[in-house]
Amino acid sequence: MDEIKIIEIKKSVFADNQEDADHLRKSLKQKGVYLLNLMSAPGSGKTTTLIRTINLLKDKLRIAVMEADIDSDVDAVKIREATGVPSIQLHTGGMCHLDAEMTQQGLDNLALQDVDLVILENVGNLVCPAEFDTGAVRNAMILSVPEGDDKPLKYPLMFTVCDTVVVNKTDVLPYFDFDLDRCRANVRLRNPKARVIPICAKTGEGVQDFADWLLQEVTDWKKK
Amino acid sequence: MDEIKIIEIKKSVFADNQEDADHLRKSLKQKGVYLLNLMSAPGSGKTTTLIRTINLLKDKLRIAVMEADIDSDVDAVKIREATGVPSIQLHTGGMCHLDAEMTQQGLDNLALQDVDLVILENVGNLVCPAEFDTGAVRNAMILSVPEGDDKPLKYPLMFTVCDTVVVNKTDVLPYFDFDLDRCRANVRLRNPKARVIPICAKTGEGVQDFADWLLQEVTDWKKK
Repeated sequence: MDEIKIIEIKKSVFADNQEDADHLRKSLKQKGVYLLNLMSAPGSGKTTTLIRTINLLKDKLRIAVMEADIDSDVDAVKIREATGVPSIQLHTGGMCHLDAEMTQQGLDNLALQDVDLVILENVGNLVCPAEFDTGAVRNAMILSVPEGDDKPLKYPLMFTVCDTVVVNKTDVLPYFDFDLDRCRANVRLRNPKARVIPICAKTGEGVQDFADWLLQEVTDWKKK
Repeated sequence: MDEIKIIEIKKSVFADNQEDADHLRKSLKQKGVYLLNLMSAPGSGKTTTLIRTINLLKDKLRIAVMEADIDSDVDAVKIREATGVPSIQLHTGGMCHLDAEMTQQGLDNLALQDVDLVILENVGNLVCPAEFDTGAVRNAMILSVPEGDDKPLKYPLMFTVCDTVVVNKTDVLPYFDFDLDRCRANVRLRNPKARVIPICAKTGEGVQDFADWLLQEVTDWKKK
């Protein structure tokens, strides 16, 4: 296989991120490319979740992945080896988030004419990525059981901007003080419409629910 | 008990954080106050670790805690209720880190003449807090087992600036693909001198090692 493409993202020079994001969203709509912005804290299992999800969807949708990371290309390599879909690594050069213009720099390196769905795996961080509209159709996030069910109280903006909260690592629920109902209630304090999807990326349990949601999302959006 | 004091931190207006940090460090040295900057990802167990550590040290050192958070005061309340030491909450107003001037704003609300050790629990974030010198004598961080032993590869600066890495939640080692030796090797790639202290804040196992290290640190520093 070829080496993974690593894009060194440059800091945006334009001030109006919202304008950039709306512009990018419009341009992706014209191309028929659905962009999902997937966020989480470090170590929540984003990459494992993505691998499972992509393998459930890759016969139905043409998928590409952009892995944002401060450093290293381990995630992009893993995704491509485990799924075969195009995957590029975005190096943020120490930056803690991606904005729309940085997302655009990544997209410029994908063959978008052959893609229905681009998944952006944002920097592992519950604070800064929530503040910047990347131009995605939807924001989703993964909260893992060991992090605790109180995270919506502590990172309010992240849970406000996400329409879907995947609760990962449900296999270790017996070992942690994490209550799914309390988690749902805390999520809904921030976003009453958010859906909560419990999964275990390690065993695959529940991942079909997330894949079904995503397929429906992309299908509905294409019809709009 | 009185209500927890909540300080709404304002963004720093001064550009030179390094100068502010060096100035703060010098001023704290004159007062005999050791400042520890404790960082981690969300949900790593900072607060539980602190409670255990403070209860082991509070008869030997006069301790105060500053809890930085985007929102909520749950951590400051927990610390004070479980340890009895003075604890204040710093609200960062959405900001993802603390710099020296913001740390100073917090310290202005503590009775420093009665304190040997201030522990700053920074915002749960492996990216931005690593970029700003708070004026602390030492940076320490907590990496929890469920986050994975590869985090030093992905968040290089955090592990470079920390002298001590506490590995928490060792009770769940059997359920995760986390290897302590591999973790030590990854940490040392970033900081060859860093010490790695495995603990389980939930059961208390190993916390004495962290407390011993911290007591020795403060004692040695006071003699300098």
